[in-house]
Amino acid sequence: MSIRALVWGENIHEQTDPVVAEIYPQGMHTVIASALEKDHRIRPKTATLQEPEHGLTEERLAETDVLLWWGHKAHEDVDDIIVERVQKRVWEGMGLIVLHSGHYSKIFKRLMGSPCSLQWREAGERERVWVINPNHPIAEGLDRYFELTNTEMYGEPFSVPEPLETVFISWLQGGEVFRSGLTYQRGGGRIFYFSPGHETYPIYHSHNVQRVLQNAVRWAYNPLRAWDDITVAPNVPVDLALERLEFQGQGG
Amino acid sequence: MSIRALVWGENIHEQTDPVVAEIYPQGMHTVIASALEKDHRIRPKTATLQEPEHGLTEERLAETDVLLWWGHKAHEDVDDIIVERVQKRVWEGMGLIVLHSGHYSKIFKRLMGSPCSLQWREAGERERVWVINPNHPIAEGLDRYFELTNTEMYGEPFSVPEPLETVFISWLQGGEVFRSGLTYQRGGGRIFYFSPGHETYPIYHSHNVQRVLQNAVRWAYNPLRAWDDITVAPNVPVDLALERLEFQGQGG
Amino acid sequence: MSIRALVWGENIHEQTDPVVAEIYPQGMHTVIASALEKDHRIRPKTATLQEPEHGLTEERLAETDVLLWWGHKAHEDVDDIIVERVQKRVWEGMGLIVLHSGHYSKIFKRLMGSPCSLQWREAGERERVWVINPNHPIAEGLDRYFELTNTEMYGEPFSVPEPLETVFISWLQGGEVFRSGLTYQRGGGRIFYFSPGHETYPIYHSHNVQRVLQNAVRWAYNPLRAWDDITVAPNVPVDLALERLEFQGQGG
Amino acid sequence: MSIRALVWGENIHEQTDPVVAEIYPQGMHTVIASALEKDHRIRPKTATLQEPEHGLTEERLAETDVLLWWGHKAHEDVDDIIVERVQKRVWEGMGLIVLHSGHYSKIFKRLMGSPCSLQWREAGERERVWVINPNHPIAEGLDRYFELTNTEMYGEPFSVPEPLETVFISWLQGGEVFRSGLTYQRGGGRIFYFSPGHETYPIYHSHNVQRVLQNAVRWAYNPLRAWDDITVAPNVPVDLALERLEFQGQGG
Repeated sequence: MSIRALVWGENIHEQTDPVVAEIYPQGMHTVIASALEKDHRIRPKTATLQEPEHGLTEERLAETDVLLWWGHKAHEDVDDIIVERVQKRVWEGMGLIVLHSGHYSKIFKRLMGSPCSLQWREAGERERVWVINPNHPIAEGLDRYFELTNTEMYGEPFSVPEPLETVFISWLQGGEVFRSGLTYQRGGGRIFYFSPGHETYPIYHSHNVQRVLQNAVRWAYNPLRAWDDITVAPNVPVDLALERLEFQGQGG
Repeated sequence: MSIRALVWGENIHEQTDPVVAEIYPQGMHTVIASALEKDHRIRPKTATLQEPEHGLTEERLAETDVLLWWGHKAHEDVDDIIVERVQKRVWEGMGLIVLHSGHYSKIFKRLMGSPCSLQWREAGERERVWVINPNHPIAEGLDRYFELTNTEMYGEPFSVPEPLETVFISWLQGGEVFRSGLTYQRGGGRIFYFSPGHETYPIYHSHNVQRVLQNAVRWAYNPLRAWDDITVAPNVPVDLALERLEFQGQGG
Repeated sequence: MSIRALVWGENIHEQTDPVVAEIYPQGMHTVIASALEKDHRIRPKTATLQEPEHGLTEERLAETDVLLWWGHKAHEDVDDIIVERVQKRVWEGMGLIVLHSGHYSKIFKRLMGSPCSLQWREAGERERVWVINPNHPIAEGLDRYFELTNTEMYGEPFSVPEPLETVFISWLQGGEVFRSGLTYQRGGGRIFYFSPGHETYPIYHSHNVQRVLQNAVRWAYNPLRAWDDITVAPNVPVDLALERLEFQGQGG
Repeated sequence: MSIRALVWGENIHEQTDPVVAEIYPQGMHTVIASALEKDHRIRPKTATLQEPEHGLTEERLAETDVLLWWGHKAHEDVDDIIVERVQKRVWEGMGLIVLHSGHYSKIFKRLMGSPCSLQWREAGERERVWVINPNHPIAEGLDRYFELTNTEMYGEPFSVPEPLETVFISWLQGGEVFRSGLTYQRGGGRIFYFSPGHETYPIYHSHNVQRVLQNAVRWAYNPLRAWDDITVAPNVPVDLALERLEFQGQGG
């Protein structure tokens, strides 16, 4: 098993905000890719908004098993054509891991079919991520909980559909709770949303967060052949019906 | 309880296909509305594609508790602005019942986040709709199954997300199966997909089908006040946190 | 609509612990029943462990639409015959609301098929119950959250199956989170688990908690006729098959 | 990855019914184990009802990653102690695959918390198993459907909880449908129910059925360490709370 992961970074905060640039001098996507590489089963690459076609050409997506998505400031700058392309690949079986502010990305909102809103606060408060389902593959190697010393608060209600599985729920110092790890399936593709990851804190340097991302990539990986005709609605001719049929005519 | 239902009809086949016009001289939407009216708890109206704003103005949607949707030939002619408007109302709590070929409507695909494909055949074959969950409100008053003498075949795989509940599964004479009654929730809105309803057969004149639609309208009705800020992601200022917080600064 | 609710109380702490007796001199079940009675659609009665057949005779259950269950010290004293009787009624369509320490009752463990364990602490700490699904019927009339000044902590992981819907998640002062309101379906019966309700605090006197219980009773009420043959696996004779069949013999 | 599978057979029909003995001279469990062995990632063993402790000692279960269960005539002869032992191992993370008439086994009914009833007919009719979720690991390598020439009919309603995922739905020649492949999770354990497998037909000799079983074993395998304290509800002392707490006393 060698999983081809692609870490997509919006890559704007890192270029414009000195606080972020100091924590992630090569960009968050690079730190995430390095973290994935520590798992020998994963071969990560990176792509950014600024590349032609945002680095998400047909060819590149065809060679991607699991896509990770970090975006925040420029959701609207992501071309609808590219969003549709990514969505089709998810339907065909590509895994997708949506990170933090990606809750409001075009791709996540399209796949959820719901607003994906939440409440938020930037106070650098403490977050404790509780493992709800300790035997879930995404929780492998974690303790009962892990903490982030400084975090941006994301709070409920998070207007997403009922998940397939609730993997993590976070406790926030300021008094909120948040479903911080949720799984979904859309067509052949597995989707994992993971909320920690605010750009002004070194969250992607955290050992536990890196572990979650490695686990999530392996979980989202679907080795089956692509469901490439998923958007087609084929007609079955009457004479090819599996049980013998005669045309019964139309009307009442 | 008096539920304001709005039956939306594409209203094209009825105007152009003599077979359909004979079965539904006033349109399918009119027959469906009359069927709903037999339930004294429901007050139905109708709207069609051809009306200004497709009959789905802000005012009309604000006065609608449950919307029923029948479309087929002209999905692409439904204005994106109107689709977004309907979607927002669903998120706020309006019920939505998607009928038959509406599986490929813009509104259903948006709310599902998946292709909503299936296989199909027009042979006028027999369909037997099995009740999977006999105590579900949508199955009230039905026997263990009901039959449609002539139907268009819709067959699996139906590329929709795992439903909240599987209410009906159909047996098709030609050898297929289909999940013909599925429930979902998106934001505050309940959604029911019901597959029977091909335009060239008198399916909406069927007593059992009419019963399902009445039940579904009552089930989808949400009497709570609209969740009208569902698309807003509010900031919670640090000094208004529920538990006392001090700003911890940014960075690593 | 007039819903026949039955509030079942273990009724031991109230008789043996002066702290509890002071808060609930007539027992928690009586306070809960009085709370339900404020909703004119609900007609509550009570039953206790100490009555013959624990007050849960065949006749009484047959006249019950929704059963509420509070137990803690004496789960093992509930007769297995009675537990099976209650379970069968749930399968037939009776609603069940399991309260607080009832997570470890025989009836809840049987219906869940899982350990239903959790972690706990008695410190009188603050609990904030967040509404995850504001348009759910069980959340009707609530604000975005409500607080309990003093509570027993119940914390994750709560080893129950993935729920149908997550209605509430609680924030605990001591640092834990808990899925405090969960819905399930088993056969024809709807089940709601609600965690607040420790006996040494006046939680069932709380307006918000009373509102949740009223809402939950209305939600769990199933007006359809009982699915009374749900435990039967009927044979369908070959000559009564819906599609004409001939017996094909046995063996390879 | 080397998965330790244990195929449990009731092993009665094979000893008493000449039709069954001819198809499965060494027992169904042996044919199933041989089928699993063709997948080099799986190391199967067998156990039967007739062995001491039904072949399911503590030691043996501790060395089992995935248990397959075929029973029919003698569900009541399975000792409750053994059932509880198996259930605990499932909760700890052991996978469980329940076959055919195992729908009425003590272990499956306990884990589902519902009656698990269905309707049935022995006519040797045709069954067509449709793949609902083609990219599910359990469907790997299958076509859109596969057929069983002769089968026992199992028909809906199947009184089980809503599954995590619906993998297969069957079309029956006599006019019924059945959810023939369903997944569940209970505690740390993944459960797959698969309905084909009547003893008087050579179903477990079918290539497609063997493929499903191999896939299901790999899917149900959980490599994480056992969740061995899942039945414990630990107290968290006040002075060990994660956030500093002071005991607030009891009462109103």
